[in-house]
Order: sequence, then structure tokens, then C-alpha cells
Amino acid sequence: MRVLVLGGDGYLGWPTAMHFSAAGHTVMAVDNYLRRTIALQTRSQALMTNPDLEQRAELFRALTGKEIGVRIGDCTDFRFLEGVFKEYNPDAVVHYAEQPSAPYSMRGYEEAELTLRNNLTTTLNVIWAVQKQAPACHIIKLGTMGEYGTPNIDIEEGWIDIEHRGRKDHFLFPRQAGSLYHTTKILDTDLLWFYVRTWKLRVTDLMQGPVYGLSTPEADLDERLAPNFHYDDLFGTVVNRFLVQAVAGVPLTVYGKGGQTRGYLNLLDTLQCVQLAVDKPAHPGQLRVLNQFTECFSVNDLAGLVQKAGKHLGLNVEIEHLPNPRKEAEEHYYNPAHSGLLELGLKPHHLDEGVLAAMLEQIVRCRRDIDRAKIHPRVRW
Amino acid sequence: MRVLVLGGDGYLGWPTAMHFSAAGHTVMAVDNYLRRTIALQTRSQALMTNPDLEQRAELFRALTGKEIGVRIGDCTDFRFLEGVFKEYNPDAVVHYAEQPSAPYSMRGYEEAELTLRNNLTTTLNVIWAVQKQAPACHIIKLGTMGEYGTPNIDIEEGWIDIEHRGRKDHFLFPRQAGSLYHTTKILDTDLLWFYVRTWKLRVTDLMQGPVYGLSTPEADLDERLAPNFHYDDLFGTVVNRFLVQAVAGVPLTVYGKGGQTRGYLNLLDTLQCVQLAVDKPAHPGQLRVLNQFTECFSVNDLAGLVQKAGKHLGLNVEIEHLPNPRKEAEEHYYNPAHSGLLELGLKPHHLDEGVLAAMLEQIVRCRRDIDRAKIHPRVRW
Repeated sequence: MRVLVLGGDGYLGWPTAMHFSAAGHTVMAVDNYLRRTIALQTRSQALMTNPDLEQRAELFRALTGKEIGVRIGDCTDFRFLEGVFKEYNPDAVVHYAEQPSAPYSMRGYEEAELTLRNNLTTTLNVIWAVQKQAPACHIIKLGTMGEYGTPNIDIEEGWIDIEHRGRKDHFLFPRQAGSLYHTTKILDTDLLWFYVRTWKLRVTDLMQGPVYGLSTPEADLDERLAPNFHYDDLFGTVVNRFLVQAVAGVPLTVYGKGGQTRGYLNLLDTLQCVQLAVDKPAHPGQLRVLNQFTECFSVNDLAGLVQKAGKHLGLNVEIEHLPNPRKEAEEHYYNPAHSGLLELGLKPHHLDEGVLAAMLEQIVRCRRDIDRAKIHPRVRW
Repeated sequence: MRVLVLGGDGYLGWPTAMHFSAAGHTVMAVDNYLRRTIALQTRSQALMTNPDLEQRAELFRALTGKEIGVRIGDCTDFRFLEGVFKEYNPDAVVHYAEQPSAPYSMRGYEEAELTLRNNLTTTLNVIWAVQKQAPACHIIKLGTMGEYGTPNIDIEEGWIDIEHRGRKDHFLFPRQAGSLYHTTKILDTDLLWFYVRTWKLRVTDLMQGPVYGLSTPEADLDERLAPNFHYDDLFGTVVNRFLVQAVAGVPLTVYGKGGQTRGYLNLLDTLQCVQLAVDKPAHPGQLRVLNQFTECFSVNDLAGLVQKAGKHLGLNVEIEHLPNPRKEAEEHYYNPAHSGLLELGLKPHHLDEGVLAAMLEQIVRCRRDIDRAKIHPRVRW
């Protein structure tokens, strides 16, 4: 199989590229370093230094003999992206190439405009590049569980049957998100669904929860192959932030009451899910939506787990409740379905003390590089 | 009241600007002539020549003594739009400033990209200009009934209560549109709803059906003040196209079976609806959605009405069924609610032979300018 990974330098993109390459597929990774650029501009650099994408691909080849093709370019430039599809003719494209930070998207006009334009134009360009250059190519799009928000009804996998005044129809599950970034993923879904109906594209839209973890079989070959690890307020997700705070000896910063509940998954399970999607593609004319997470935790649950894991390593972990910088429900109903990927064959890894302890040990090795100024929220909405 | 009309040169924008000015409001109209530019590039010019926006405003002032401010500029340029809001500080902004042609949006990549970028960026810019420069300003956004598509359940006004597995919540009514243009209006609604929740904006989103008519009290003062009248396959809606075909002596071109049913309204009722929205604004934090049409017709109904009206003027009108250039249901359930505007005070004008006969007479006067090459569909999807 020929697999094209857009956003191949990212936290998920690089491990995905290595995973498919190690599994014997032909892989090309595309990136324009947008996340690195924003991180540099906003003092949000990752904890460990990551070699650039070309260096990582060279190192991976030296260690494994497997080749990962690299193209540095901007997916919002249609001529560039169409050229990549024409040259490479992928069987599947994994589309991670979006500005991924919710707080960044809420920082000001320029950041909002960049996020909207980057994310929507890239999705439009992927659709058109597939239609023009590789019409049988299966589009695997990374969406987010955040598209659904926190409704007062059970969240289904992408779709819902509505019976209304004695008549029935089948619709996209209603979506309402908590940041502009998450809203752009809703717009992506709407856009994909329109073109799927119109052109009979094959699309899998993965509604993913927050991912944690640094270890994959390939990443573990050499620390320079590790995924990037952000713990700052823009790119760092809550698990990362808590782990770094535990190591740095500062209290874990719970936003508000801490009842905010989401579905989480291990990086290893993201790789499994994307692999399952590639192996069992959507049909022409199908927008297949899969809820991609393995277990639900509240922010308070996560703080408690990190505290416990820290204690076993001799870390004295305290918990502090900050005024919530975000507009979000701090106590809410949350019951999202997630059977689709299990039915495709997903074997979940669970978040336990062992996983957290292994991450804590990696972070302890970089303890002196932790910049505490990066952790506290700088953007409020 | 200070009313800002974005897209003030358009079929709806110019009559709206005159209407509010005649009613004693302070009006500013903004346009960058995007529709005229596209019409010129695609040989889709209007039937009657319309003076430019500044000339029309001068003529209107000469005839009525009322001043309509004009700014020529691009609403996708945030600095320009923010400057207009800062200078003008409107109480209400009527946002018509979008690429309005469904077939144009389906023509090719460049047209799709322009439509997506123009429409979404303008909506984002309106939101941010209001938030930064005029936070109490009421945003009146022109959406489309096309956002809903043709579901198999009754269409409510923007929102729906869903009961699912014993629990309930209130959601945006599910939307799925038939062209990229219509899809951009769905994305606009999603974007507005996000910022309404986050910033407590006041927004009225008008889900409008196709509009017909050339006559308003102000437009009738001088033929040079008439709204633009498009009958081509890109900008001409079905009523206009049929009327011109009737006059030109070519068969009315029904796409497919002709059972496609939509809600229509007279231009006079658009003006009433926008006036009612301005007079009774949405509350802070409210996304008020109103379905803006007065009666439903199928394409076959409209062809029959035009045929009948033509007969009385001595025109021999034939009807021809073309293969449908669009992907759309040609026979479907359609029962959309539209009580909100009636409750606000709308007094509908109905589509009858008199209205059609008056339009036919105006078109007969321009008979020799009709370009038959403009009528047949050039874009298929």
C-alpha cells in the first residue's frame, strides 16, 4: 500500500509514518513545520529536541533500512499538494495537517484566521487532489471528539437516527465545539460529507480524543525518533502538562472544578486505529465516522492518577484548582459510543500507573529543560 | 439606527440599502464588485445594465435627498472591514457579502477555493469586527433554506429538540446542502453559533429561499435604481430564467423531473424580513434562526405559472425537461416551518400571475438584449 501522511512531522504524524513504513508499506510524509514555527513564535517548544523530518527519516533508514519519503511544503498550496498526489498516487492519505491548538485558535484575530484558513483550505485541497489525481484513494481524516461537545444525550458514532413528528431520517450527529480549532474540525466534517455525497469519495473521519504516550516500537529505537512532547498551555494536552508539573514539583493545574470528562487513548492505539482504517477502507460514497478513544476520565481522575504514579517515584504531587480559562461545562453528562474501532479489531492499551510511570521517567531525564513559564494558561475565552 | 449593508451592490443588498435609507435610517453600503467581476469573467452579465454602487447612491440622493454611504472594499480584508466598523459604529450589520452562485462554486477548484475562502473569511471578519469595534451590533446574516437540504422529516426553524435513549437536548437542526456554495452557508452557521456561545454576540441567521421580483418602492423611482436581474445559469434563479425563456420564445428548461420543491419569496418580503430582524434584534448570546420564505413551489409548479402568465401576454410558452445538471432529489418530502417571521409581523406578498406579468413586461422591454447562450447549464455535478 502507498500511504501518504500529511502533517508527517507532528506528534501523531511521525509515529504514523514510521509505523506504516515498519509494517512494509510505502510511506511519504509531508509537512511545512507550521506547528514548530508557531511553537517557536509563542515560546511553546517541545520538551525534548526533535530532529527535523528529513533528519528523522534519514535516521530511521539508517536504523531499519526502511525509506520514508519526505516532501516539505504547504498543503494549503493546491499546486504543491496536487503535485504530491500526482507523483505518489497514494492508496490512502492520512490527513493530520491542521493547526492543532485550541488555545492558539482563541488567542486573537490573526491566530483565528490562520487556523480557519489553514485547516479548511487543506481539507478542501485534499478532497480536490484526490478527486483529480487519485479518485480511489481512501481519505483518513483526523477529527476530534471535541466536535460533539458535551451534549445531554448519548453521543453516537458520527450519525444519529432522528424520529420527528412521525417521520424518520438519518443525519450527522449534531456538533457544537468548545474552541475555534474544534469548530474547524466540524467544518471539515461538513465539507467532507458534502463532497462524499457528490463525488462518491471514500472517507473515514476519526473523532479522536486526547492522546498520551511517547512510546511506540519504532520511537523506542532511538530517542531522536521520539514523538514531540509539548507540555505548554498551547500544544500540551492535560496528561502531558500534569506529568511535567509532577516532575517540576509544581501543583497540577486543574481548570475549574475538574469534572470535564473526555475519552482518551494511548498513542499506540492511535496507530492501531489508523492502521485498521487503512486496512478496512470506507466504501465509495461512505463517510465512515469512528469515535477514537478507549476510556473516559475526568480532569480530576487524571490528576489523581498522576499523583498516585508520582508518589511511587517519590514525587510529592499537589493539585491546585485554577479559574477555568475556557468556556466549558465543568460538570456534565458524557456517554459517547466507541464500538466501531473495537469491532474492526482494536485491542486497547489502558491508562494505568505503569504507563504514567514510564512517561514520568522519560520526563525526569529532561527535568532541567522544563520551563515552568510555559505551563500556566496564557489565553482565556 | 445605523445600518451597515455588506454586499450592498447585490440583488438584495442595493434594495436593502435604499429601503433602510428611505425609512430614515443612516445607511452605509460596502461592496467589492465580486459578483460583477465573476459575471464579466463568465459571460453571465445581468439583463439590464446597473450603474455602479456610487452612481446609484448619487442618483438615489438626487431623487430622494437621502444619503447612502458607500465604501468600495473587500470584506475578506480584516483591516478594511474593521476600519469600516470603527468609522461607522453600526447598530446592525446585514451580511450579504458572499459569493452567491451554487453552479459557480461547483465549476472547478479555483471557484471552489474562492467561494470557501471568500464566504468563510468574510463571516469570520464580521464576527471579529463586531467583537472588537461594535460589540452591541446585531449581526443579520443571510443564510439559505438550502442549508437544510431535503430531509425526510419536517424542517424546523434552525433548531430541533432531540430525545434519544431517554435523554433530551436542543441542537441546531441537522444540515446537508446540495452545492459547495450552500455548504459554505452551513459552515457560516456553525462558525456564528460557536462565537455566539463564546462571546454572547447577537445574531439573526435568515434561512432564505430563492427570491424573485424587481419592484420595490425605491427601485421603481428610476429604472437605473432597479436590482440586478440575472437569468444566466450561474446567477439566475429558476423564476428569472423561466421568465426570460418565456420572453425569448425558448422552452422553459426544467432540470430533471421538476419535483424539486423550495420555499420562495418576493423581494418586497426580503426587505420586510430584514427590517423586522433589525427592529426586533436577537438577544446577546442568541443565535436566532428564521426560515425566510412565504410559499413552497415545485419547479413544475413554477413552469406552469410562468406558462399561464405568458399566455395572457400572448407568449407561447413551452416546457422542456433537461437531464438534471445537479445532484439533487427530484421528488422528495418537503415541509419546512416558517412561522417565526409571521409572528414578528411579516405580511406576505404572494406569487401570482400579476407579479409574473409585471416582471414579464419589464423583460419584454429588454427583449433584444437577451443572450440565449447564457441560459443553458454549463456546470454539472
